Amino acid sequence: MSDTRPIGVFDSGIGGLTVVKALRELLPNENISYLGDTARVPYGPKSPETVQRYAIELAEMLIKQDAKALVVACNTVSSVALPTLTKNFSVPVIGVIEPGAKAALAASRNRHIGVIGTRATIRSGAYEKALRAADSDVRVSSQACPLLVPLIEEGLLYDAVTEQMILRYLEPLLRDEIDTLVLGCTHYPLLTGAIGRVLKRQIMLVDSAHNCARAVEEMLDQQSLRAAPLNNGKLHVALTDAPDTFLNVVREALQLNFGQIELRALP
Amino acid sequence: MSDTRPIGVFDSGIGGLTVVKALRELLPNENISYLGDTARVPYGPKSPETVQRYAIELAEMLIKQDAKALVVACNTVSSVALPTLTKNFSVPVIGVIEPGAKAALAASRNRHIGVIGTRATIRSGAYEKALRAADSDVRVSSQACPLLVPLIEEGLLYDAVTEQMILRYLEPLLRDEIDTLVLGCTHYPLLTGAIGRVLKRQIMLVDSAHNCARAVEEMLDQQSLRAAPLNNGKLHVALTDAPDTFLNVVREALQLNFGQIELRALP
Repeated sequence: MSDTRPIGVFDSGIGGLTVVKALRELLPNENISYLGDTARVPYGPKSPETVQRYAIELAEMLIKQDAKALVVACNTVSSVALPTLTKNFSVPVIGVIEPGAKAALAASRNRHIGVIGTRATIRSGAYEKALRAADSDVRVSSQACPLLVPLIEEGLLYDAVTEQMILRYLEPLLRDEIDTLVLGCTHYPLLTGAIGRVLKRQIMLVDSAHNCARAVEEMLDQQSLRAAPLNNGKLHVALTDAPDTFLNVVREALQLNFGQIELRALP
Repeated sequence: MSDTRPIGVFDSGIGGLTVVKALRELLPNENISYLGDTARVPYGPKSPETVQRYAIELAEMLIKQDAKALVVACNTVSSVALPTLTKNFSVPVIGVIEPGAKAALAASRNRHIGVIGTRATIRSGAYEKALRAADSDVRVSSQACPLLVPLIEEGLLYDAVTEQMILRYLEPLLRDEIDTLVLGCTHYPLLTGAIGRVLKRQIMLVDSAHNCARAVEEMLDQQSLRAAPLNNGKLHVALTDAPDTFLNVVREALQLNFGQIELRALP
């Protein structure tokens, strides 16, 4: 059996393409339909109610395209809307939080884990909850880093200002002696290099995009939803508004090939 | 005759409150109804078509509240949607571009004017067009400063990182020997102090909020739309999503008193 229905991946904007990149590498046979809500990006500063409403709209658009599963390639949406999505849709829904939390627990030796993300993700406490549910002894130090997304979207991936902000955000976590850091925003894998340069000590970086892709693979296997190994997986990218310069930043940094972008109106 | 219908002021978010502050100081007898689209902020990176659609929705909401005039307290909206708004609504519509351009021409001695704003505002060339329409000999140097809004919204009004970014953005304009700088974004009046510290030479700063308020005053007089001098003007603030920390930044920096915020759903 080959299930060639697409995996529906959505995000508040373009940052979720880091998850697509990880999915393409891990699951090259799968068709992927990506939907980024560039008309209303960013979700980070918005209220949980608004984010939930937007998430349902995007998920509905993907379900209409016959998506066999929904991947929430956005930490903000994953942290506040996963239960709502699971309740509203019958296909499997995979977020980025739980896979990231599991990988962090596997990586940490001193059971002290740092989490960085948007203000909405950190305020939700979603990583803390997921980490504690798996290990009640874990210590978690969280830090909202609201300026990292704008810096990344400007393409300042190798820039003194970006490194200064990273250092400022990470200092309290380093003082707390974390040994593992969860990059709790799908933009942040683009800063792996800069974060590495700023960190003096050896800290394990947990990339939510990569771990989310592994969780998707596991789910497809368990539910027999895989496309056949001969299927040449296609990637289709749709956005709710014309992309700005950040799309070029992502294209170049990820070396991701997605051809023509479709502009799709919100309901 | 006293026309106590409110002046309807709208913006993509909270930055437009700098215009409200200027209006309150200049026109203390006027009732003001402010609407900020925090559910879809920021407009800066969005396409002109999307910004026009959003602007019409917001204007309709204010017209339903019996607004006697519409003030577009947002440079991005002013730069791409003013003709659409004027065509769609019968009340006077005042933006921030033309008043700012006029004030810059009055201030400049060497006829070389710098303009900073969001990417959408700068890309639209709206200030350049308005400046040239009034003086065909003027030289204009423009610079998009996409990181200033996020830095302001984080409250980093007196911060080394903000000053570094300002310097980086302004350097090409200073090399061009501008003598006047238009702050072409309603957030930027909050950075007047930081910009002043960064500028080595004497540069005239033109604040679009203040000049917009003067244009509103002139229009009210011309069209006999003023509230009576005895009227104690009230300010009502509505937002399309719960405000984040930036509201506290604005409240403190502007010393603006606006009591209870109303949350109003988009149509």
